[in-house]
Amino acid sequence: MNLKKLKLKYYNPLIKHVIKNEGVNMSEQLGITVKKNQDFSEWYTEVILKAGLADYATTKGCMVIKALGYGIWENVQKLLDAEFKKTGVKNYYFPLFIPESILKKEAEHFEGFTPEVAWVTHGGDEKLSEKLAIRPTSETIMYDTFSKWIRSWRDLPLLTNQWCNVVRWETKATKLFLRTREFLWQEGHTVHATKEDADKQVMQRLEIYKKFVEDNLAIPLLNGMKSEGEKFAGALYTTTIEALMPDGKALQMGTSHNLGQYFAKVFDIKFIDKDEKDKYAWQTSWGLSTRVIGALVMVHGDDKGLVLPPKIAPTQAVIIPINFHENREVLEEAKKIKKKLEDGSYSVELDDREEYSPGWKFNEWELKGVPLRIEIGPKDLKNHQVILVRRDTSEKKCVHAINLEESVKDMLGSIQENLFNKAKKFLVNSITEAKNKEEFKKILEEKKGFIKINWCYTRECEEKIKEDTGATSRFIPFESEKTKGKCDYCEKDAKLVAYFAKSY
Amino acid sequence: MNLKKLKLKYYNPLIKHVIKNEGVNMSEQLGITVKKNQDFSEWYTEVILKAGLADYATTKGCMVIKALGYGIWENVQKLLDAEFKKTGVKNYYFPLFIPESILKKEAEHFEGFTPEVAWVTHGGDEKLSEKLAIRPTSETIMYDTFSKWIRSWRDLPLLTNQWCNVVRWETKATKLFLRTREFLWQEGHTVHATKEDADKQVMQRLEIYKKFVEDNLAIPLLNGMKSEGEKFAGALYTTTIEALMPDGKALQMGTSHNLGQYFAKVFDIKFIDKDEKDKYAWQTSWGLSTRVIGALVMVHGDDKGLVLPPKIAPTQAVIIPINFHENREVLEEAKKIKKKLEDGSYSVELDDREEYSPGWKFNEWELKGVPLRIEIGPKDLKNHQVILVRRDTSEKKCVHAINLEESVKDMLGSIQENLFNKAKKFLVNSITEAKNKEEFKKILEEKKGFIKINWCYTRECEEKIKEDTGATSRFIPFESEKTKGKCDYCEKDAKLVAYFAKSY
Repeated sequence: MNLKKLKLKYYNPLIKHVIKNEGVNMSEQLGITVKKNQDFSEWYTEVILKAGLADYATTKGCMVIKALGYGIWENVQKLLDAEFKKTGVKNYYFPLFIPESILKKEAEHFEGFTPEVAWVTHGGDEKLSEKLAIRPTSETIMYDTFSKWIRSWRDLPLLTNQWCNVVRWETKATKLFLRTREFLWQEGHTVHATKEDADKQVMQRLEIYKKFVEDNLAIPLLNGMKSEGEKFAGALYTTTIEALMPDGKALQMGTSHNLGQYFAKVFDIKFIDKDEKDKYAWQTSWGLSTRVIGALVMVHGDDKGLVLPPKIAPTQAVIIPINFHENREVLEEAKKIKKKLEDGSYSVELDDREEYSPGWKFNEWELKGVPLRIEIGPKDLKNHQVILVRRDTSEKKCVHAINLEESVKDMLGSIQENLFNKAKKFLVNSITEAKNKEEFKKILEEKKGFIKINWCYTRECEEKIKEDTGATSRFIPFESEKTKGKCDYCEKDAKLVAYFAKSY
Repeated sequence: MNLKKLKLKYYNPLIKHVIKNEGVNMSEQLGITVKKNQDFSEWYTEVILKAGLADYATTKGCMVIKALGYGIWENVQKLLDAEFKKTGVKNYYFPLFIPESILKKEAEHFEGFTPEVAWVTHGGDEKLSEKLAIRPTSETIMYDTFSKWIRSWRDLPLLTNQWCNVVRWETKATKLFLRTREFLWQEGHTVHATKEDADKQVMQRLEIYKKFVEDNLAIPLLNGMKSEGEKFAGALYTTTIEALMPDGKALQMGTSHNLGQYFAKVFDIKFIDKDEKDKYAWQTSWGLSTRVIGALVMVHGDDKGLVLPPKIAPTQAVIIPINFHENREVLEEAKKIKKKLEDGSYSVELDDREEYSPGWKFNEWELKGVPLRIEIGPKDLKNHQVILVRRDTSEKKCVHAINLEESVKDMLGSIQENLFNKAKKFLVNSITEAKNKEEFKKILEEKKGFIKINWCYTRECEEKIKEDTGATSRFIPFESEKTKGKCDYCEKDAKLVAYFAKSY
């Protein structure tokens, strides 16, 4: 092997050692070189690049979602889309381009998004008579059309969703999955006859999100209302699901907005009600994006790489046959195991590449976060057994071949549960009450996480907190008790309980 | 009912009568007002708008894909994606934006696409230092990245695909699904060690497309190679599947290109082969878009609206209970039928809306192309029977309830077959041989369809034909016999057999 002949085209300084198995110790090449608790940010990027979730794109600020990352997104789509459809939502596709005049119609919305809009000004060689925004979100372009579709109460509710790309012209440094100029998401948009129907819709979607994220991504959540300062531009109110990352920063995982009648009035979405009166409609919108993949990496990953919860993993188990070159029966048995597990609806890979050693393969599949490794060698074959190795705890278990399916089922279930419980414990322990400004600051400097306070709920105090500490109000619990006494931060009269944190 | 109170906001002159069931005869309102054989183009647009497949968007030149149209596209995605995955393809997602310098790198490709590129010049308020193309297709942005991923023969073949939106700045009049500035598609991109592997890949994809379109969309195809003049900009050669529309114009349904080493040389995609030598890779790309939905409408639709082949229909059967207000057992039985058919993996709707009459429902579901209607009323219930009505032939059949599932299966199978056979007969009859220029022109004026000639295969003759007649060369059959004698059009020496037609 001639190392010098290898074309070493490194375009990201992090990937210093990505050379495929060329006789050099694999762990030096492909492994994660930074520890999660030493340099969290570097660790995060390394895991994404080396596990093959995504890559930096040639286009500045953008990313390439690679097969593993997109495979996770496909599972997100499949699971969420089924939930949406069960509740009567249908998928549509609206244009990428929004004429400036349409985007401008709802003033607050436009103001909220205009600093981060990418503009198309030319088609071919021609200058356009009106510039076109690349959708940062589709309220305006959709509602302009809804106004033509809706005439009577019979047309309501209108329950739509689209899976698409959106663009927000970020100027801060790119962070894969969390801050890129283009990302993928779903955006649901519904139209209702009454505020009550819209309220119910908002909560129904938030609950679907919460259940989906907790059950499948194994990421525990808190939820509540956004403050006036943090709500969606143009909404009556915004509800949110919030997760906590291991570095103590919050990550917004999805939002569901009641848009009131603001957009309906601007875009003239009226309907004739059963009482024959013309009324403005009530609307909601709700979205969840590829940033949840970033959360998956951060919450569950470890020093060996990615750790995927079985319910969202594109590959749930990998079979590594040992010494199968000398003993072809091992390979035959491995194939049978694969077939059997696939028939049981598990997604399974059989790694029968001859040019890599088992040890190399163990490392690679661990890096890629596959929840379960199944080893089988000549000795195992003789003893009618297989070895199961969990990705999350590294625990090894030798099981009788006859019990394989049940053992796989149990172990995958146990991994899913363990990942959630670990994260849940962390989340619960990361909520701290602050009794005054000093405590608030101290928590943010030391322990981090969510800070729960009795709050005056004034824009002034919210801005002061942000300025002083960098933390923002994350949410106000739905069941928020009315509080008496003083605001824990500014000592004005407290109105409610709120959670603050630094965030992504 | 006060007609004047209805908000009549018509933005397309074609929808003159779209008022929901307000006491006026439904057929006057929702039905198709133009006959397919009288004004094909008007008929096409009316079917799409009134069946609810798509709508014109506020953004000029763009469309909104509505629930029914998107439902068909979801089925296209599901079926094709499964075929791709079976053959080792994985899905990726590359950026929407291509820096001008990257798009320009392969000169022939850039020249081919530059007249129809939309350009982003501003992000927020800032002018960009380099303008960004909205992808018209992704060869350049993907291959620039591939060059960083591929090092050795072990990395090959690289089999990628992405489902995404693309933009081509059409200046001709918008035609829903066929000519819009933005459309959805899949684009596959693969990298291989040898020309032979790339050749095989090209043909494998074309065969997958052909089988998919013929088996599911029930649209018969011809296939072959594109001429030099019609091949993809930057390809070594292009293969194509071509369908014939009822107006005698050809429609390209999908293409699969061998890109040779052109892009590899420009983007420096090299690998170290087993012989330790540095070699340029061979590449392919292949795509199929939402325009196939346009073909579906044209090929199978009739004067009552859309006709969908069962295998691609989002709703395969609709159950219409008759007089169920008076006899609730009818509704119970209808629900049982729905459950039974859904358990058998059919997609079924039960139309139990009380505000519409059965006749109105019949018309609406016919308009929407649902392959099978299932009627059940009090008399049927008593006689343990149901009525099945085929959308394609309007044939009615009374079947015993006990045989329902088998009858549904048979009838859907028969509809699928009938639609294909009808279209196949039309296609076969639409191929005419021309023996000279005059015959060529006469066929185009009268019978239309494909014209088969012995051809000199010169750019000069191809351009002359286009200029004289508006027809282009559609394909050269793979099994093309070497021909002797003269070109049927220009009388130079003939080289091969080619098919010409006017096209979309």
